Amino acid sequence: MSVSKDSAAFAPQANIYPHDGWVDRTMRNQLAGHKSGVVWLTGLSGAGKSTLANHVEQYLFEKNYLVTILDGDAMRDGLNADLDFSPESRKENLRRSGEVAAMLASRGFIVLASFVSPFTEGRQIVQDIIGDNFHLVHVHAEIDDCINRDPKGLYKKAMSGEIKNFTGVGQSYEPPESPDLVVNTSNTDISTASDYLTRFIERNFRL
Amino acid sequence: MSVSKDSAAFAPQANIYPHDGWVDRTMRNQLAGHKSGVVWLTGLSGAGKSTLANHVEQYLFEKNYLVTILDGDAMRDGLNADLDFSPESRKENLRRSGEVAAMLASRGFIVLASFVSPFTEGRQIVQDIIGDNFHLVHVHAEIDDCINRDPKGLYKKAMSGEIKNFTGVGQSYEPPESPDLVVNTSNTDISTASDYLTRFIERNFRL
Repeated sequence: MSVSKDSAAFAPQANIYPHDGWVDRTMRNQLAGHKSGVVWLTGLSGAGKSTLANHVEQYLFEKNYLVTILDGDAMRDGLNADLDFSPESRKENLRRSGEVAAMLASRGFIVLASFVSPFTEGRQIVQDIIGDNFHLVHVHAEIDDCINRDPKGLYKKAMSGEIKNFTGVGQSYEPPESPDLVVNTSNTDISTASDYLTRFIERNFRL
Repeated sequence: MSVSKDSAAFAPQANIYPHDGWVDRTMRNQLAGHKSGVVWLTGLSGAGKSTLANHVEQYLFEKNYLVTILDGDAMRDGLNADLDFSPESRKENLRRSGEVAAMLASRGFIVLASFVSPFTEGRQIVQDIIGDNFHLVHVHAEIDDCINRDPKGLYKKAMSGEIKNFTGVGQSYEPPESPDLVVNTSNTDISTASDYLTRFIERNFRL
């Protein structure tokens, strides 16, 4: 028992930071000059979620926003590499992704989260985890446009039967009933769509 | 098939960002003015990992570093709430925590990660995931000091048998064989220990 007076700061009373450390979200927001939170982009594969997120991230980064992308595909390469596409795994994929989005938001980021997230139940899981400053954005395109674009060649595989339960082919997409914003990429170009989403973010993340 | 020329930017070619978005780690580091990476604090419960991390976070934040804490206990409240303390769950806890630390580092943060992480194998999992700019710091205190501090009352519970397999009581702690830094909190005060770790970080995260 060799604790000296000098090491008193390592005693119990000094160690009551169960969660976030000394620097809290408000301090981070003040330093960044804007609120943090999550913009959850839901929509079919090929609707343009990632393209849109990348354009908006670039624009906001150049304006000195603390902004980042959380991409469903990238999550499945790393943190969620152990999960498949069964209903249970889809839910767990969204639970973990929601937790990570919340962690990034609590550290000051505007998170542009791109996830097909086809079911209301799954999106609700995410919203419940994230809580404050969650915005649901439906990136909508006609299914024919998505099939035509097919950026990852996945519709082709789904239609040939190589992929089962693909959203839009073997599996349904439940459009959000009351999204905070709808971006229709079937009737607009990327520049207009990005401006539209950027203005939405600037309005909603002002301190 | 109503894709107009205006929406050409939503075509496949525009959509090849599988991971990180347009803004990469180098750009974020340039803006922040320092490198990003992970400082992994391993040590017994009560050794002072969180206290140290909080002091260093506060100091670096006030110097405008992009810095954050990733705390093992907080992770177990959220992302890893589904995991117990079995050997498999401990490994999965570290795998996920390593992935999250890597995500934060890729977004420009200096991550102060506080995890007991008692086994060499578990720490190796984390190091393999994080890769670049990973620094292993052993926060060391004599077991008697840890028991005496017992910030969370866990040693008391472990010694009464209420908690099984507690590191330092029912379960061993494997000290790192070649840590990048050792901070001994049994023979130093918090201010000295924080300065020591801060100088280490300033040296290793300079651009």
